[in-house]
Amino acid sequence: MNKRDELQLQCPLPVSGDRVLLAHGGGGRLMQDLIRGIFLRSFDNEWLRRLHDGATFPVEEGTLAFTTDSYVVSPLFFPGGDIGSLAVHGTVNDLAMCGAMPLHLSAGFILEEGLALDTLRKVVESMAQAAEGAGVQVITGDTKVVDRGKGDGIFINTAGIGVVPPGVRIGPQEVQPGDRILLSGDLGSHGLAVMSVREGLRFTGEIESDSAPLHLVVHDLLECGASVHCLRDLTRGGLASALNELAVSAQVGMTIEERLIPVREPMRGACELLGLDPLYVANEGRFVVFLPDAHVEVALAAMRRHRVAQQAVQIGTVTAEHASLVALRTVLGTHRILDLLSGEQLPRIC
Amino acid sequence: MNKRDELQLQCPLPVSGDRVLLAHGGGGRLMQDLIRGIFLRSFDNEWLRRLHDGATFPVEEGTLAFTTDSYVVSPLFFPGGDIGSLAVHGTVNDLAMCGAMPLHLSAGFILEEGLALDTLRKVVESMAQAAEGAGVQVITGDTKVVDRGKGDGIFINTAGIGVVPPGVRIGPQEVQPGDRILLSGDLGSHGLAVMSVREGLRFTGEIESDSAPLHLVVHDLLECGASVHCLRDLTRGGLASALNELAVSAQVGMTIEERLIPVREPMRGACELLGLDPLYVANEGRFVVFLPDAHVEVALAAMRRHRVAQQAVQIGTVTAEHASLVALRTVLGTHRILDLLSGEQLPRIC
Repeated sequence: MNKRDELQLQCPLPVSGDRVLLAHGGGGRLMQDLIRGIFLRSFDNEWLRRLHDGATFPVEEGTLAFTTDSYVVSPLFFPGGDIGSLAVHGTVNDLAMCGAMPLHLSAGFILEEGLALDTLRKVVESMAQAAEGAGVQVITGDTKVVDRGKGDGIFINTAGIGVVPPGVRIGPQEVQPGDRILLSGDLGSHGLAVMSVREGLRFTGEIESDSAPLHLVVHDLLECGASVHCLRDLTRGGLASALNELAVSAQVGMTIEERLIPVREPMRGACELLGLDPLYVANEGRFVVFLPDAHVEVALAAMRRHRVAQQAVQIGTVTAEHASLVALRTVLGTHRILDLLSGEQLPRIC
Repeated sequence: MNKRDELQLQCPLPVSGDRVLLAHGGGGRLMQDLIRGIFLRSFDNEWLRRLHDGATFPVEEGTLAFTTDSYVVSPLFFPGGDIGSLAVHGTVNDLAMCGAMPLHLSAGFILEEGLALDTLRKVVESMAQAAEGAGVQVITGDTKVVDRGKGDGIFINTAGIGVVPPGVRIGPQEVQPGDRILLSGDLGSHGLAVMSVREGLRFTGEIESDSAPLHLVVHDLLECGASVHCLRDLTRGGLASALNELAVSAQVGMTIEERLIPVREPMRGACELLGLDPLYVANEGRFVVFLPDAHVEVALAAMRRHRVAQQAVQIGTVTAEHASLVALRTVLGTHRILDLLSGEQLPRIC
């Protein structure tokens, strides 16, 4: 008998009822049922089984990365993913952007009274599968329930701890004039996939979220001999916002080439139709790399060995001129400043 | 000029407007303003200033603790604390209950569109003060904004990492028949303080939340020579629920003495009036300790040196009999089973 079966024997009663009640967050019997019947069943591991206030684990001397994100995407399910897989991939990717291999995740759930328990089960099972796929475990967690109308179904926070290999120093402060900018793939699928469900739109050609874990491609990128200065995933605000943030933090300029930026045809069409700029649309499996010119080819080769970065390309250069600004050289050869928008074109995307 | 002043010069413009907008969570200029103008201003440290996707820090070989909690308390402010100080104390205490000294915190905010920015400023400043008081820093964070009516002002998730001293093994699995049960102080103040504001009640005698960081008293308890088997803070569901959870996890029985459990007079009166049982009301600065009889005196002496545990007392014993059940010997000398409630008497307490 495997451990999962043993556990089911320990909690033979299914969680009663079909909706989340305030009492499921109250620290009493219903909360215990929820923890054992849904969370432990999907996330089962030695730490969670102890049911303590936290998890303890051994570490070797070195450098750790620590990150957190809350996920409030609406709707909860979309083509190519759901809030559960997103909550794993997003935090695994934030660790990867620090150059770290993910070690452990925490999960904090804020549930709205009245949520269907079946919806929660599906989300938690998707999260467990995404975690297994990314080689991490959820080792500590928390559940709160808020009154009907004070939440929106499910919000999830995940925090993550990762291990940074010796000698790796990645961050905005490492970006240098002369660095080349690589992009791992085509833009905008996550944002459009979420929006397509929310607005009931159907596009020619399927648009699925690009949500995916990036730690393995980052691992190979760091191992391939290239000296990587900075990594950044292109989530809220897309490519344009990520580059703007980095240009300000690193006090450098950047110039990117419009004709080199991959945008797939259905995406281009959908954006034109909706008046969106794909450079500002959110992605959940795309990132940029900053590194010296001499390392571009070896880095691109390492990236292209991974399905999530098969289309990796060089898109631009870091400059000492126009510090804090990102310039786009258009397909017509003119330049325009890619500014930060005040907010996002599509809210509640992650 | 100190660093905080320098930072203010870097972001001389106050966050514009007086309400949270959806665009504050959109990854664009307004989000940058919010991060620099409110979060960085209060939490300022070298990690946050880098504005990267995560924080990296060195660790020595050893054991770490990892925990997470979301805070959804309603109302946001209550006598003796607010959601910000609670979000720090709660997670610091979960680390302490693993025997760990807190090292770093993350903070994830879910803000409701329309929230007054002044409210957010107050909460974040309270959080920063509580973190300073507990000797930890918020080194990584995240902000999301949800539409009006899809949240409740502010939800905060904090995750925490702590260092467990060598040789410390604390957890439900360490609890043994014969262990004594110590309680750090009087019960129920946090739950009643929150409820008093929510229901507009005024009690004779002030009832303030007992919310407080417990890592220092735990540190001394672990240093005093007592071999501590388990620690548990008495949050949602109070003393009765915490003991029930542990009795089930450790497969032991427990017997506690009603006459030994400190409940202050205003609390007793308020509970009688409201039909609440103080053994089930939430606390945020109280905990129980399990350890061998021979170590009770040295442990109590160590605890009583701290203001947060001045009233520490022994309240009961772990038994091999009636495994999974907690028995209360009443002031009349009779026994009754202290069962788990299905939910909590007061929801949205933390």
